[in-house]
Amino acid sequence: MSEMRLVVAGAAGRMGRVLIQVIHETPGATLAGAIEQADSIAIGQDAGLLAGCGQTGVEITGDALSAIAGADGILDFTSPEVSVELSVLAAQARIVHVIGTTGFTAAQLVGFEAAARHAVVVRSGNMSLGVNLLAALVEKVAGTLGSEYDIEIVEMHHRMKADAPSGTALLLGEAAAKGRGVSLDQHAARARDGRTGPRRAGDIGFASLRGGTVVGDHKVIFAGPGERIELSHAAEDRSIFARGAVQAALWGKSRKPGLYSMVDVLGLAD
Amino acid sequence: MSEMRLVVAGAAGRMGRVLIQVIHETPGATLAGAIEQADSIAIGQDAGLLAGCGQTGVEITGDALSAIAGADGILDFTSPEVSVELSVLAAQARIVHVIGTTGFTAAQLVGFEAAARHAVVVRSGNMSLGVNLLAALVEKVAGTLGSEYDIEIVEMHHRMKADAPSGTALLLGEAAAKGRGVSLDQHAARARDGRTGPRRAGDIGFASLRGGTVVGDHKVIFAGPGERIELSHAAEDRSIFARGAVQAALWGKSRKPGLYSMVDVLGLAD
Amino acid sequence: MSEMRLVVAGAAGRMGRVLIQVIHETPGATLAGAIEQADSIAIGQDAGLLAGCGQTGVEITGDALSAIAGADGILDFTSPEVSVELSVLAAQARIVHVIGTTGFTAAQLVGFEAAARHAVVVRSGNMSLGVNLLAALVEKVAGTLGSEYDIEIVEMHHRMKADAPSGTALLLGEAAAKGRGVSLDQHAARARDGRTGPRRAGDIGFASLRGGTVVGDHKVIFAGPGERIELSHAAEDRSIFARGAVQAALWGKSRKPGLYSMVDVLGLAD
Amino acid sequence: MSEMRLVVAGAAGRMGRVLIQVIHETPGATLAGAIEQADSIAIGQDAGLLAGCGQTGVEITGDALSAIAGADGILDFTSPEVSVELSVLAAQARIVHVIGTTGFTAAQLVGFEAAARHAVVVRSGNMSLGVNLLAALVEKVAGTLGSEYDIEIVEMHHRMKADAPSGTALLLGEAAAKGRGVSLDQHAARARDGRTGPRRAGDIGFASLRGGTVVGDHKVIFAGPGERIELSHAAEDRSIFARGAVQAALWGKSRKPGLYSMVDVLGLAD
Repeated sequence: MSEMRLVVAGAAGRMGRVLIQVIHETPGATLAGAIEQADSIAIGQDAGLLAGCGQTGVEITGDALSAIAGADGILDFTSPEVSVELSVLAAQARIVHVIGTTGFTAAQLVGFEAAARHAVVVRSGNMSLGVNLLAALVEKVAGTLGSEYDIEIVEMHHRMKADAPSGTALLLGEAAAKGRGVSLDQHAARARDGRTGPRRAGDIGFASLRGGTVVGDHKVIFAGPGERIELSHAAEDRSIFARGAVQAALWGKSRKPGLYSMVDVLGLAD
Repeated sequence: MSEMRLVVAGAAGRMGRVLIQVIHETPGATLAGAIEQADSIAIGQDAGLLAGCGQTGVEITGDALSAIAGADGILDFTSPEVSVELSVLAAQARIVHVIGTTGFTAAQLVGFEAAARHAVVVRSGNMSLGVNLLAALVEKVAGTLGSEYDIEIVEMHHRMKADAPSGTALLLGEAAAKGRGVSLDQHAARARDGRTGPRRAGDIGFASLRGGTVVGDHKVIFAGPGERIELSHAAEDRSIFARGAVQAALWGKSRKPGLYSMVDVLGLAD
Repeated sequence: MSEMRLVVAGAAGRMGRVLIQVIHETPGATLAGAIEQADSIAIGQDAGLLAGCGQTGVEITGDALSAIAGADGILDFTSPEVSVELSVLAAQARIVHVIGTTGFTAAQLVGFEAAARHAVVVRSGNMSLGVNLLAALVEKVAGTLGSEYDIEIVEMHHRMKADAPSGTALLLGEAAAKGRGVSLDQHAARARDGRTGPRRAGDIGFASLRGGTVVGDHKVIFAGPGERIELSHAAEDRSIFARGAVQAALWGKSRKPGLYSMVDVLGLAD
Repeated sequence: MSEMRLVVAGAAGRMGRVLIQVIHETPGATLAGAIEQADSIAIGQDAGLLAGCGQTGVEITGDALSAIAGADGILDFTSPEVSVELSVLAAQARIVHVIGTTGFTAAQLVGFEAAARHAVVVRSGNMSLGVNLLAALVEKVAGTLGSEYDIEIVEMHHRMKADAPSGTALLLGEAAAKGRGVSLDQHAARARDGRTGPRRAGDIGFASLRGGTVVGDHKVIFAGPGERIELSHAAEDRSIFARGAVQAALWGKSRKPGLYSMVDVLGLAD
């Protein structure tokens, strides 16, 4: 089978360079283009050299349209505005668009549905295979165990992280709430402190630890009478997000146009 | 709805007494009979008093047939021979037979299929809801993740446990092997020591810790490139096996005759 | 060597009965008396029978003075008022007084210093050997590692616990603050939620999980650049507090009068 | 205070480049020289450029003697033979020699004692601050807790690691044995499998997990009646060994000649 030809958007940024490295290491994938803002100082440089994996012959360009020509997919961890523009180009070219960007407005999200009539669009708030698999398991377990099993979610991240709980912890909380058929908003117990009284039945608790250089650990605890089940994920480095994106692209190559998530890529959708 | 009337076999033993306590605490279940060996010194005693949950009016008897008369189900953590005899009685009475006994021969297991034509038989090597749920998750994850995710199983039990790995660790290993579509026998890596060389691709590793009074902890690790997913179970006390058995009985009350496992009780069967 | 003769105060309560069981199991210790409130319905009953470890010949009495006569030590998990009264009796009898009671006023605590001129008084907010050992380790590590190691304390308890963080988590936080030579009040970060900004340098973080029937887990994390050290304690059942108290009594038998803590019993004081 | 001028041996290797990066980031330390084998293709290159932290003006050289001239210390993760040669040079120059090399013969180790009459020699089987601190804690806890606390050591490393248990696990086992005043050889329980019988009193158990890309996790469990104390270390990346070596050099600057270990650097020696 021929190699899948992939374009990296935001190629000179931290995530862009990791994407280029992962494409370089992945059988079946090859770097076909590298896009940056037109005024980036990286324009014209060799994308592989910049990413630390040797000369590739692919120059970083500010012209997205020409970069996409002849490509099979585009990997995109940029900004909401850039991702929206790229989705139009990807739809025109009928190629796979993998979107790891976060922070979209509701209106922008609706826009992707139009693009998805012509292109395979894979979008997820966390591109790691492991985290998405964990979320699927959490939903299943929460739907299986009764209310005598209390759900607690604890996460740890590096000392620079500025919000709590993490977006991924909330994603896991949503999965738990969905499994139970309830709304997370009405059942989230965040930040216990002082005279709390006994645990409220049906709560989904959150706790956030911060320190050192921890990339990201998440654990979901189901604590029942006499036993505990724990499902956890530990990220060792940020390459797992790039690896998930490349895998999503390879998966999307042979799909029909549509809007997909990492749950589909993992084959966990019902 | 009327209470489910349950008989406990081996009622004067350690597990029997825990079963009586759990029935006592469980809405919808009531103690209807208590069986012991005919020569037991406990014959004639009040089953509830012996179990430490107050007078019940149910005397421990050596006459299984009379104990079963009028009952809806029997809970049985005894010996293979006793369980086989009880399965005949349960089939005749067309009641639920929950079997937590272990160590059956292949021939004995075949015998249960005959009984299951007339009775609901629920049998499992580990009656804990949590462990059976964990096994179902392990099978699913092993079937989802590729061979770049290495599977390791580690367990800890109290200092008196005389075999390693634990039966439950092996049950989890079987689930992992089934998920991957391979044979555990050909892929189990037990007890690494010395110059082992790099990990063999596709192995399922086992490690056993022993110490103190630990009831039973199990963890299955899926270690991939840059990330780890861990699924674990911790047993705080032995009542979880009794609780699983009572729940299995309640579940079985409205089923058609047949041979079931805890996977069915949990609703996790495909 | 002769057995140490021990009196249990609050003998009919939950903790009192566990103390009687542990004395029963501990070589070198023997039950010499059992005290309850004068109006308790347990007065006159055999203390061993009540605790589930067989007839001992020791009757539960409301007369503390006579119970103490001829004893070598008293184990006391009662109320602040009762403990203060017992300390006077223990000082008069010049026997060991092990105090696991909590909630004393500052004035009551000063009173123990007077008693400690004549008796060996061992008092601690948590009588478990493991927790006290953990606190000593935390103080040492906090004093050894520089400020580039962030300290986080996470605990989990059963769903009925009504305050957060646990008293033991705060005790561990005090140990960490002492090791660093700072005040916990000025450095405790409790209950992160929302836009917190980056972690404040020097903070000691707390997080509390609640669920199921967890007796009590505590973990102290030192998260530095590229590595984490974690010190943790898991309580499997409440007998560890009784066991620590009996060990404190045996340790105290040959000491000079004075006010001691579990740190002294463990031989960890500098 | 003036900067400490440090030379890196094996500067073009993986560990050498990490050492150069860490020196670059550490206040009070500056790169003064970079040594490689005389036939290395890296000779003549700028050491900082090679390590990815920008031009330093320090060229990689095959002439160790000239590189050391004017330096205050040398960091050395090379081979036993090279380390022995460097120790002679370091002794002549009376500078600090930090040795992270492993695999020395007993005769080679004796040689360092001669060098240590003139130079500050810091040598350790594991240069991480955290692991050495953990070992000191393990020795202390093992010496404090009685034989009713069983000691188990479990470690996890990446799939390429070819020996088990890890050297660091054995180092921790030695610390535990020393704390108990016994010989590890006579008490190590490695690789439980099959009908083991109950745990042998006094054993120190080892278990090794292998998988994925795990840099190195170690946990020492003290499992007693009703409670567990766990001391653990997780390495996130290999820079912690370089960071420990640079800290050892800075510590050694003002010491008298002698043979030291990381325990001395941490201030944990008795």
